Amino acid sequence: MSFKHKHILGLEELTAQEITLILDTAESMKEVSERDVKKVPALRGVTVCNLFYEPSTRTRSSFEIAEKRLSADVLNFTLSHSSVTKGETLLDTARNLEAMGASVIVIRHPLSGAPWLLAKELNSSIINAGDGSHEHPSQALLDLFTIREIKGKIKGLKVVIVGDILHSRVARSNVWGLIKLGAEVRVVGPPTLIPRYIQKAKAKTYYNLEEAIEGADVVIMLRIQMERQESVYFPSLREYSRFYGLTREKLKGADKDVTVMHPGPINRGIELSSDIADDASSVILDQVSNGIAVRMAMFYLAVSAGRNQ
Amino acid sequence: MSFKHKHILGLEELTAQEITLILDTAESMKEVSERDVKKVPALRGVTVCNLFYEPSTRTRSSFEIAEKRLSADVLNFTLSHSSVTKGETLLDTARNLEAMGASVIVIRHPLSGAPWLLAKELNSSIINAGDGSHEHPSQALLDLFTIREIKGKIKGLKVVIVGDILHSRVARSNVWGLIKLGAEVRVVGPPTLIPRYIQKAKAKTYYNLEEAIEGADVVIMLRIQMERQESVYFPSLREYSRFYGLTREKLKGADKDVTVMHPGPINRGIELSSDIADDASSVILDQVSNGIAVRMAMFYLAVSAGRNQ
Amino acid sequence: MSFKHKHILGLEELTAQEITLILDTAESMKEVSERDVKKVPALRGVTVCNLFYEPSTRTRSSFEIAEKRLSADVLNFTLSHSSVTKGETLLDTARNLEAMGASVIVIRHPLSGAPWLLAKELNSSIINAGDGSHEHPSQALLDLFTIREIKGKIKGLKVVIVGDILHSRVARSNVWGLIKLGAEVRVVGPPTLIPRYIQKAKAKTYYNLEEAIEGADVVIMLRIQMERQESVYFPSLREYSRFYGLTREKLKGADKDVTVMHPGPINRGIELSSDIADDASSVILDQVSNGIAVRMAMFYLAVSAGRNQ
Repeated sequence: MSFKHKHILGLEELTAQEITLILDTAESMKEVSERDVKKVPALRGVTVCNLFYEPSTRTRSSFEIAEKRLSADVLNFTLSHSSVTKGETLLDTARNLEAMGASVIVIRHPLSGAPWLLAKELNSSIINAGDGSHEHPSQALLDLFTIREIKGKIKGLKVVIVGDILHSRVARSNVWGLIKLGAEVRVVGPPTLIPRYIQKAKAKTYYNLEEAIEGADVVIMLRIQMERQESVYFPSLREYSRFYGLTREKLKGADKDVTVMHPGPINRGIELSSDIADDASSVILDQVSNGIAVRMAMFYLAVSAGRNQ
Repeated sequence: MSFKHKHILGLEELTAQEITLILDTAESMKEVSERDVKKVPALRGVTVCNLFYEPSTRTRSSFEIAEKRLSADVLNFTLSHSSVTKGETLLDTARNLEAMGASVIVIRHPLSGAPWLLAKELNSSIINAGDGSHEHPSQALLDLFTIREIKGKIKGLKVVIVGDILHSRVARSNVWGLIKLGAEVRVVGPPTLIPRYIQKAKAKTYYNLEEAIEGADVVIMLRIQMERQESVYFPSLREYSRFYGLTREKLKGADKDVTVMHPGPINRGIELSSDIADDASSVILDQVSNGIAVRMAMFYLAVSAGRNQ
Repeated sequence: MSFKHKHILGLEELTAQEITLILDTAESMKEVSERDVKKVPALRGVTVCNLFYEPSTRTRSSFEIAEKRLSADVLNFTLSHSSVTKGETLLDTARNLEAMGASVIVIRHPLSGAPWLLAKELNSSIINAGDGSHEHPSQALLDLFTIREIKGKIKGLKVVIVGDILHSRVARSNVWGLIKLGAEVRVVGPPTLIPRYIQKAKAKTYYNLEEAIEGADVVIMLRIQMERQESVYFPSLREYSRFYGLTREKLKGADKDVTVMHPGPINRGIELSSDIADDASSVILDQVSNGIAVRMAMFYLAVSAGRNQ
């Protein structure tokens, strides 16, 4: 099977087979990262532009390292909100980058759907690095990769996603990916923060953390992102933390080999108690590490698909 | 003929033969950008520093891509105005970069003449990426390249430059380049925004856009840069746009194959109506694309000249 | 003798033999910087992250050039103070960079001791690029290299360090390095700005510049860093400059071949009169240039030590 998408925009639109192919390719890429010389020539002479409309040093750095390990020429193009409001349109900026020779554009944008607009209008490969509260495919793929690596499978696992589901693109991409690969997905959070797509995706909704965690194989904690919430959805951080923060006590009902995940950076003492964050059961740094391999696989497959079209 | 300038500072000081050599070299460089592996080893092991005292993500990115395609090691050195006022002098900064091994310094500076100061005092190759309201040679060279590519020649063409001629380094470099290569150059803008060098260069001055456009082969629209104008030279943007903004209607008198150019980013609805910007007759994205090839040629010729000295 | 430290944190903890090995290695690296192709493959496929919690374009650029000349993949990770106060801990950030595959982390941090914390907790090589008012080993090593290059030796030389000794990590690292290599070290500054370690290191303290300079072979001027001083230690810049600024007159008592050094950037007219800064006897640009070779040597030795462990 060959990968047909020169753009990777979201997990809702990929099949289980395509997602599995990305994960399998990432396994080969992980080997590269374990060598002394962590570099392959797959993207030599290819210019990749990281077009970020939201600050995100971590995600951008992970993409940048992946690009450099594939020997790409990397251009970082970060725009502050102010320059955007008075400046040219997203489409004009992206067309310019394409005209300068960017064969791949990695885009992060506060508006949901922005990467789809570029994919429709440009010839460059578009990789979605997070659009609004919509999708964040590379994060979900690295979560899937990490779960499969630890548990040996994804099918049949009970996976709980905890927190502000409504505003989380990490949650949305994970819900689609996990469901497609056959996991039982439970989302849990305040009733105001559960979006409608959860039903469509056939995930289960909970409002009580202990209930959701009962028998869980994997618990994915979401980061509280104060900056994304246009209005107040819960009374206070302390309140939120009391009901939806993960502690040793609340984990008791989970499977004894439960894996706790978090996309980082952690707000210690809010989403996760510090002991859980540091515990061996947490694989947060494995997620970060696998992010490089998964992003390398995404680039490799998308660029190859583009060349074959 | 070999190129003798290890610095490329402005078009006023280059001969028609030298300009033509840069354009011819850019044609070879354009082939590199059309390969799968867009890379040649011409500047391998050479450190190029982009020393920018004005923010300009686009121009800096174009230089950076050109440098990486030549396999140079790239150092971006961006200084905000605040750090400049309290910090070391331009010359001390540049001498430091040279001491660190920067063989080429690409400089953008708000003061006219800054690149000449560096060229006089340093051994590194200096490339002017725009100095004050003075010269912007790489932009003019990519305009000349694009005109020659579309029209097959420059000699004898009627080329109109529209807008704030006084504050535009793009205009100044284009006037010198076009005149030297034998074009008929017409500048048009509000009387307060026509500088004195226009006469010296033997360009023609117009105040009425329709008159200037009569029979034109090429129309180069300038960007309105509010930030550059120390005082108010025209009553309002709306007024300016009404008299000097380009619309389908105003283009009627031009040659039927007229080419409309703009250095970007476009202020849609001010300098250009949106339909013209998107129209096939506009070659704005070709300009951006050619910018890579032209800058590669500038580096290649300047560094070769420096090695032969 | 092989170098055993995969971290290079400070000169207080290195032996004279280890310091000399770094300086000898830097001599070979300097040859690389004198070739047309200034590049060796020593760190090919190795990701180096420059993690800077204080803005310092110069030091960061010098490290970046050194890294690229060794063919490393470079990641710049600059955090503003604001993002630090509300964001994750230093240790979480560094662990993330390590998880992403950064084999070497170059850290600059406002808190003394930060690099030691990382060295204790991480597997990556840690290079200290300046921690608080504590150590700045690469600067001292390049100073030692420059002195040895000019004078042919360090042992027995009379070296004067002038200025705000208390807040200067450059002073501290130089004092330890010079004393270990057998120089006679004199520090001179206002009594309020002389720290206690001077006695422990067996350096001599002076309060009068002319007295300290008597017979000096080398004078190292420190930069006044207004931003580092939490309270006022001297009445005014003018006062400071009058007593501790270097002029032709005050240099009279020094050895006739005295060398004046400064870590840059210079505050002309404050620490140094402009004629001295520009004078041939000043080797300030040699220091900058040697900084590349010295940092290449640091990386080479630290990474080799890490591989052999």
